[in-house]
Amino acid sequence: MKFNNQSRKECINMTYQFSTRVPASDEDPVGNILKVAGSPDIISFAGGLPAPELFPVDALKKVTNEVYDESGRQALQYSAAIGDPALRTQIVKRMAKQGVDTTIDNVMISTGSQQSIDLTAKMFINPGDTVIVEKPTYLCALDVFRSYGAHIVGVEMDEDGMKMDDLEKAVAENPNTKFIYTIPNFQNPTGRTMSAERRRRMIQIVDQYDIMILEDDPYGAIRFAGDDIAPIKFYDDQDRVIYLSTFSKILAPGLRLGWIVAEQSLMKKFTLMKQSADVHSDNLTQHIVARFMAEYDIDDHINKIKRVYRKRENVMMTAIEADFPKGVNYSHPEGGLFIWVEVPGNIDTQELFNTCIKHNVAFVPGEPFYPDAVTPGTFRLNFSNMSEEQIKTGIKRLGSAIKETISESVSEVSEN
Amino acid sequence: MKFNNQSRKECINMTYQFSTRVPASDEDPVGNILKVAGSPDIISFAGGLPAPELFPVDALKKVTNEVYDESGRQALQYSAAIGDPALRTQIVKRMAKQGVDTTIDNVMISTGSQQSIDLTAKMFINPGDTVIVEKPTYLCALDVFRSYGAHIVGVEMDEDGMKMDDLEKAVAENPNTKFIYTIPNFQNPTGRTMSAERRRRMIQIVDQYDIMILEDDPYGAIRFAGDDIAPIKFYDDQDRVIYLSTFSKILAPGLRLGWIVAEQSLMKKFTLMKQSADVHSDNLTQHIVARFMAEYDIDDHINKIKRVYRKRENVMMTAIEADFPKGVNYSHPEGGLFIWVEVPGNIDTQELFNTCIKHNVAFVPGEPFYPDAVTPGTFRLNFSNMSEEQIKTGIKRLGSAIKETISESVSEVSEN
Repeated sequence: MKFNNQSRKECINMTYQFSTRVPASDEDPVGNILKVAGSPDIISFAGGLPAPELFPVDALKKVTNEVYDESGRQALQYSAAIGDPALRTQIVKRMAKQGVDTTIDNVMISTGSQQSIDLTAKMFINPGDTVIVEKPTYLCALDVFRSYGAHIVGVEMDEDGMKMDDLEKAVAENPNTKFIYTIPNFQNPTGRTMSAERRRRMIQIVDQYDIMILEDDPYGAIRFAGDDIAPIKFYDDQDRVIYLSTFSKILAPGLRLGWIVAEQSLMKKFTLMKQSADVHSDNLTQHIVARFMAEYDIDDHINKIKRVYRKRENVMMTAIEADFPKGVNYSHPEGGLFIWVEVPGNIDTQELFNTCIKHNVAFVPGEPFYPDAVTPGTFRLNFSNMSEEQIKTGIKRLGSAIKETISESVSEVSEN
Repeated sequence: MKFNNQSRKECINMTYQFSTRVPASDEDPVGNILKVAGSPDIISFAGGLPAPELFPVDALKKVTNEVYDESGRQALQYSAAIGDPALRTQIVKRMAKQGVDTTIDNVMISTGSQQSIDLTAKMFINPGDTVIVEKPTYLCALDVFRSYGAHIVGVEMDEDGMKMDDLEKAVAENPNTKFIYTIPNFQNPTGRTMSAERRRRMIQIVDQYDIMILEDDPYGAIRFAGDDIAPIKFYDDQDRVIYLSTFSKILAPGLRLGWIVAEQSLMKKFTLMKQSADVHSDNLTQHIVARFMAEYDIDDHINKIKRVYRKRENVMMTAIEADFPKGVNYSHPEGGLFIWVEVPGNIDTQELFNTCIKHNVAFVPGEPFYPDAVTPGTFRLNFSNMSEEQIKTGIKRLGSAIKETISESVSEVSEN
């Protein structure tokens, strides 16, 4: 085909009129950080990537060939919005292991947890409605809630997760609260886990105030120390908890497959929203993962991940203890991918980041994780995606950069 | 892991408070029709499925193995929201064949055209903004526009697509119009194609009134008769056209991969919206399709599809001419998957559908495709997913059902 458009003019700079859901700025501070951190000389603890050397490539290849041979045409065709029944059956079995009795009619497949968060937000948030979140929390969830016009209220955490007195106060003060968004296990960015007692208390609060919980659990399966704690969904007698999880951390994030567990009347709405969003998730990939779970014990695979991540986390903790200056606080996660660091004093985190880049080491500054007032001197470290050697070297560099920044900050204070 | 929750009570029936974006009814009329039409005795022209016997399963299997062997870990890892560069490079080449010069920085991969429509709607529509559409049009686009609070205005079509005088009137009467949504080639549901002259005229109108066009082109490549017409995007001097297409009809819909071509400042926003929606589309599948396009000539594959669909459409047209009563109108598509039928007189389409089910044949009634006033007696026939034998038998049954419904309707009129 060949077309000519002789009248083609120079482009006029069109001014687009976006909806209020679109951020005014094209700035992507975290994207910029990841770009800087991506330089080959830099040891980056900034990303949140699972270790690719652990992806079960051979097993996935094997089951993919079986899918092509046995149900290729079906896997390549359109499918139902709620997702592949074989995959949903496997998820019901996984949920049972966590103490959550459910059925395939209560499970919908999504294109990863990000989509699960987006669909839930679209489904519940009218502009001005309140969403309560941990402070700090997953920054891309904040983006989604903002895009639907939510009023976001952050609740302080300690090592046992969200503080329940603060939570109840926030709920009481915001009668238009739609739901509490929480990552109870090895939270992003803090690595903290909510205690069983607080999970029970959170259920009492939502029952009393007639609101919902969005329980986002991408990391719960990656527990390498301590005892399992049942999901909040386990304590949910009134169907107020929408539970989300994903294959991103336990199998492979490139596949973009997650799941939602919720009450059946909610499932009808989720299916309608999903249909409008992308009809259904990749059907070939759903078939592949269903078959992987039928033929292999995914917990064997997860145990491999845990062993590696536990070692990396231990190496990182030991290095932090040795190389960070006294007074720096950090979380002690029993699983997941992240450690949270708080440097005391009024440290400018961006300045610390810049110093780190000079020392060829990187992290994600705390700022984008905060829904409102930012705690200075905070940042997130990832331990899943670096070798033990790199972790040792990187933390040494980070320790030097922190010391340098603190001493400069002290000298600035004395000069003033 | 084993948990016990002794205090577990009977579930209380929770009343959920949804956002205004959620349809109040759980009814899914089209879903119900497809369910009825799915009975094994029924010849169904209701769906919109590509012919699965044409999916290039062996070629896809071959390139999938190559992806696992050569870049498996990369394909299984997180990736960029805008999509795989190799796949975007292939799309730039395809667009060039259609006369659209673009770059990979102007192309974003989506999880199918449905997501492209959803992201565009979220990006542009504030509640109350007008979206102008063809009447009738793709029903799931209507669902999306409604979910963001759009005021939808339908413009009448004839065999050359949207009537331009009516379009200009609609634009002039609705100064808050954000964009025109159009499917210019082998439109769903009518099978009609917009003439080149009208495409040029549409560009003049949007330039004059300072609005946008969302050009949805899933079927354009499946032209089996007549001459190609350049996309509206080809005439777009002021970057007002957002062009969408998909691999669903030319390769396989189960893969859920589509693309968006737009001006680069728009791409920044699309990338932000995409990140919030599902981070990125399935990376494994993007690698597979990129490799398929690099190793195979996808146009060879599309030519196979065209040959089969042309024969099926010809068989359907011949059968319609033979078996439908005089006076029934129908479109004469030169490509795509659908024929549109208009039975004259004030026929109740649902009654006709019920009669058809008794005759073991099915279609999709026109109603859900209309944004406002419905033309009675209209319905959509799909010819891509049935054998020639089934088409002949099905159309004969359909002819009988129409005759029966018309004669009953006439006798009812005479009785009154």
